[in-house]
Amino acid sequence: MTVARIYLAGEWREPTGTKTFQAHNPQTGQVFGDEYPVSNWDEIDLALKSATKADAITRGWPGSRFAELLERYADVLDANADPICELANQETALPVTPRLKNGELPRTTNQLRLAAAEARTGAWALPTIDRENDIRSIYRSIGPVLAIGPNNFPLAYNGISGGDFAAVVAAGNPIIAKAHPAHPGTSRLMAELLQKVLQDLDFPAGFAQMLYDMHPADGLRMVRDPRIAAVGFTGSQRSGVAIKAAADACGKPVFLEMSSINPIFILPGALSGRFDEVVNDFLGSCLLGSGQFCTNPGLVILPPGADAARFVKVMQEKFAASTPAPLLAANVKEGMLMRFQQLLGTGAELLAGGKACAGDGYRVENTLFQVSAERFLATPEAFLEEVFGNSSLMVMTSSEDQYEAIAGCLNGQLTGCFYTTEQAADEALYRKLEPVVRRKVGRLLNNKMPTGVAVSPAMNHGGPFPATGHPGFTAVGFPASMRRFSMLACYDHVAPQHLPELLRD
Amino acid sequence: MTVARIYLAGEWREPTGTKTFQAHNPQTGQVFGDEYPVSNWDEIDLALKSATKADAITRGWPGSRFAELLERYADVLDANADPICELANQETALPVTPRLKNGELPRTTNQLRLAAAEARTGAWALPTIDRENDIRSIYRSIGPVLAIGPNNFPLAYNGISGGDFAAVVAAGNPIIAKAHPAHPGTSRLMAELLQKVLQDLDFPAGFAQMLYDMHPADGLRMVRDPRIAAVGFTGSQRSGVAIKAAADACGKPVFLEMSSINPIFILPGALSGRFDEVVNDFLGSCLLGSGQFCTNPGLVILPPGADAARFVKVMQEKFAASTPAPLLAANVKEGMLMRFQQLLGTGAELLAGGKACAGDGYRVENTLFQVSAERFLATPEAFLEEVFGNSSLMVMTSSEDQYEAIAGCLNGQLTGCFYTTEQAADEALYRKLEPVVRRKVGRLLNNKMPTGVAVSPAMNHGGPFPATGHPGFTAVGFPASMRRFSMLACYDHVAPQHLPELLRD
Repeated sequence: MTVARIYLAGEWREPTGTKTFQAHNPQTGQVFGDEYPVSNWDEIDLALKSATKADAITRGWPGSRFAELLERYADVLDANADPICELANQETALPVTPRLKNGELPRTTNQLRLAAAEARTGAWALPTIDRENDIRSIYRSIGPVLAIGPNNFPLAYNGISGGDFAAVVAAGNPIIAKAHPAHPGTSRLMAELLQKVLQDLDFPAGFAQMLYDMHPADGLRMVRDPRIAAVGFTGSQRSGVAIKAAADACGKPVFLEMSSINPIFILPGALSGRFDEVVNDFLGSCLLGSGQFCTNPGLVILPPGADAARFVKVMQEKFAASTPAPLLAANVKEGMLMRFQQLLGTGAELLAGGKACAGDGYRVENTLFQVSAERFLATPEAFLEEVFGNSSLMVMTSSEDQYEAIAGCLNGQLTGCFYTTEQAADEALYRKLEPVVRRKVGRLLNNKMPTGVAVSPAMNHGGPFPATGHPGFTAVGFPASMRRFSMLACYDHVAPQHLPELLRD
Repeated sequence: MTVARIYLAGEWREPTGTKTFQAHNPQTGQVFGDEYPVSNWDEIDLALKSATKADAITRGWPGSRFAELLERYADVLDANADPICELANQETALPVTPRLKNGELPRTTNQLRLAAAEARTGAWALPTIDRENDIRSIYRSIGPVLAIGPNNFPLAYNGISGGDFAAVVAAGNPIIAKAHPAHPGTSRLMAELLQKVLQDLDFPAGFAQMLYDMHPADGLRMVRDPRIAAVGFTGSQRSGVAIKAAADACGKPVFLEMSSINPIFILPGALSGRFDEVVNDFLGSCLLGSGQFCTNPGLVILPPGADAARFVKVMQEKFAASTPAPLLAANVKEGMLMRFQQLLGTGAELLAGGKACAGDGYRVENTLFQVSAERFLATPEAFLEEVFGNSSLMVMTSSEDQYEAIAGCLNGQLTGCFYTTEQAADEALYRKLEPVVRRKVGRLLNNKMPTGVAVSPAMNHGGPFPATGHPGFTAVGFPASMRRFSMLACYDHVAPQHLPELLRD
C-alpha cells in the first residue's frame, strides 16, 4: 500500500505524519486505492510558510498572470475530462454522464474561465478615481486563503478547482486547499495537472497547495494563524460555526456556505391549477443526485384541503417507485438516519422510506415526512435543521394564516420559493408572504425549484445566517464572489508611479 | 431639574427607568442642563417593537422617499446651524468656528445629501440583470439597524445625524440611534428636528428613534436581539470587540470603527529634504482637535541620524509652546494619563507634556514620547494600543532594516503614511515597505497626514482588524458605505410585477 504524497511548497512530498485514510466506493462501501495522509502541524506550517513567501512575490502581479493560470488550468482539466470524471465517479458514485462529464466538469472550467476574464480586465475590483481630491480606491488581494471544499461537488466546489479556488486565485491570492476526504484521488489528479501549469507559468512554489485532511483542532489553529488572510468554507453547519467562531475571534474574513432547508411555499391556486408541474418539479429537484445539494427542497408548505392530501399520496408513490442513487459517504447515510429518528421524535409522520436500503454501499430509501403546521409551529427549531440527502418534509396547513406564521419563524436560508398562479387569492398571499421571506433568503424563486445554481453575474448563492456567515456575499457568480477574497485599498495623494495600473489617470 | 424625554415609537416619552446622567462642559468640568435618562430594557424593547413595525411598512418603499427624508433633514439642520453648533460647543468644547459651523455641520448635511442622491437613483444597490437565465439581483434593505455614535464628532458621526445614520436610512432601513452620552443635548435637538420631518413626510412611528444611554449589558442584549438586523459602531476597541463578539455569535452583520495608531513612516530623504513640511504637517495633524481623531498620527517612524534628533527637538519645543484645547470628556483625559503610565512602564521616554493641565476642565499637555526601534521591536504590542488625544510616539531607528521590521509587526490600521522624496534611496525603501504596509491599512497616504477624511466615493475609512471588523467595508463615502446596511437579494424566475423596479426589463 502506497501512502500518497502531498502537494506542498511546489513539490509532491512524503508525508511526515502517521495517520492515513482511504477513499470509499459508495456503490460498495469498500475502500480502494492509495492511503492518503492526514497532515500534521509540521506539514501545515510548511504550507503556511510557503504561501507567505509566494504571496510576497505574486501580490504585485497584474491580473493577466492569474487569468493565464486559470485559463490554462481550465484547458488541461477539459483535456483530462475522462480520467478525472472516471475517478470522481469511483469516489463519489456520481454518474460520469450526465452529471460529471456533461455537467460538473464543464461548469468547473467555465467558472475558471469566467474568473480569468474578470482578473484580466480588473473590473471586479471596482476601481474608483476621485481626481478632485486625488483619492483612489480599488479591491485588491488579501493574502493566502484557506479554501475548504465540501463532499458533494468533487470538481465544481473542490478547494483545488472549484468556485472558491477560482475566486481566490482570480483576486490574486495564494491558496491552500483542503480537499474533502471523500474524493482524495480526484483532488490529487487535479492538483497534479495544476502543478504543471504553475511550473510552466513560473508561479512561485506555494502559490497553490493542497492538504488531504487534518485533525479538526489543527484546522482551527490554521484558521487562527495570522498567515491565513481569509477563509472560504463549504460544508456542514457544525463545522462551519466552529470555523466562523475561530475566524471571528481574530477579526478574519470568513465566508461560509453551511446549510439550508430551502422552503417551498406552494400556494393554494398553484397546487390545484398546476398540480402535475409541481409534482414533477419537486420530484426532480428533491431526488436529483440523491438530494445532496445545498439547495435541496427540504421543506414544502402545502395548502389546506384535498389537493394537499392528493399531492402527498402521489409523492409517496413516486418516492417509493424511484430507485435511490448512492450517497456520497457513510456519514451522509448515518446523518440521514439520525435526523429521521429526530424527526420521528418530534411528531413528524413518516410517509415513505425512512430506512437504509438493503445491500452494499451507501443508500437510503427516498424519504418523505409530513407534519401538521400546528406541530411545526409549536417547536419550529426542531424542523429547521437540514437533512442532507434524498428526503423532504411536507408541512400540512389548515389555514392560510399558518403560511405567514411559518414564514415568520424561518431562519436564514440560501433559497426560498413560491409556487403561484395569477389568481387573486394567490397574488394576495404572495404579497403578504414575500416581504417576510425575502429578508430570510439569498435567492427567491417563483414557480421554479432551487436546485441548479446558474453561474451568473446576477446569482446569489448566499443568504443570512445560518445559511452563510454574512448576507452580503455570494459564493457563486463572478465578479461578486471574487470580492470576498479581497480588501478595499485606498490611495490618498499617492504618487502616480506607486499606484496600481487601474488607478492611474 | 427636568429629566429629558426619549424619542421612541414616534413620540417624546417620559423615561421609565431610574438612572440619569448630565452633560459636562469640558471647559470647566461642570455638569449643566437637563438630566438625561439611561434607558432600561422596557424602553429598548419598545424601540425594537416599534422599529419592527416601521420596517414592515417602509421596506417596500422606493428610494426616493428615503432621499426626501434625508434632504429635508439636511435642510433643517442647516437652517438651525446656530443653535446646534452652540449647544455642541458647550457639550464638547469643539469650537463653533471653524470646526462645528464651518466644518462639521456642512460635512454632516453634505453626507445626508450625497446619501439621498444615491438612494434616489438606486445605483448604490448594483442592480444586475441576467436576461438569458432570468436571474436578477440587487442590494436591498436589511431591517432595523442599531447605530452607536462616538464622542468625537457630535454631528458628523452622531447616530442620529452622521455617516452611519445617512447610510442606514438611504439603504431603506429603520434606525435606532444610541447617542453618545458626551453630547445628549445636541443629539436631542437634532432628533427634535428630525421628528418634524418624519411627521411631515408620513414616516411611520419607529422609523428613527434615539436612546441616550443604556447599561452595557442591555446594549449587548440589544445587539443579540433578532429584531436588530445589523449594527454600526464607532468608538473604543474595548466596546467594539464586545459588540463584535455578541453580533458574530448570532451571525449578524456588524460594522465597527474602533481604533488606529496610523503609522507615519518618514523616509530618510524626506526628513532631510522636506524637514519644515514634515514638521508643520505633523504638528497640525497631531494637535488638531486635541488629537481626538481616529486618524490621529500616533506613531512616527524616524530615520537614523541627526535629522531625527533635530525633528524631535523641534517637536518638543512646538508641543510645549502650543496651548492644548480641552478634551471631550473626563474619561478621555483619564484614558490618556493611564496610557502615559503604561508607555513609561515599557521604556518609552517622555519628551514633552505627560500631565494633566492645571486648572478646570479636561486638558492634558501636548505629549510626545520616544522609543528606540530596538525597544519597540522587543514588545511591539505594548506600543500598538491607541492613545486617544493630543499625544504621539516617535520611534527612533538605527538602521533602515528596522523600518521593515516595524512595518511587519503592525496590526490592522485605518491609515498608513509615507513621507518620501523621489531620491533613489527613498524610492527603493518605499518599494520595499509599501507591499507590507498596504495590506495592513485601509488608506495609504504619501506626503500627506491622515487626519481629514474626505467624503469621497473613493474614500476608504476602514481597514483590517482591529481597526475595523472587516477589511472590505468603509464607514465614509457613498455609495460604498450604504452597502454595509443591506443584503444581496437575488430573484430567480420571478414574475415582473413582483420584481423591484430597478430589476424590471
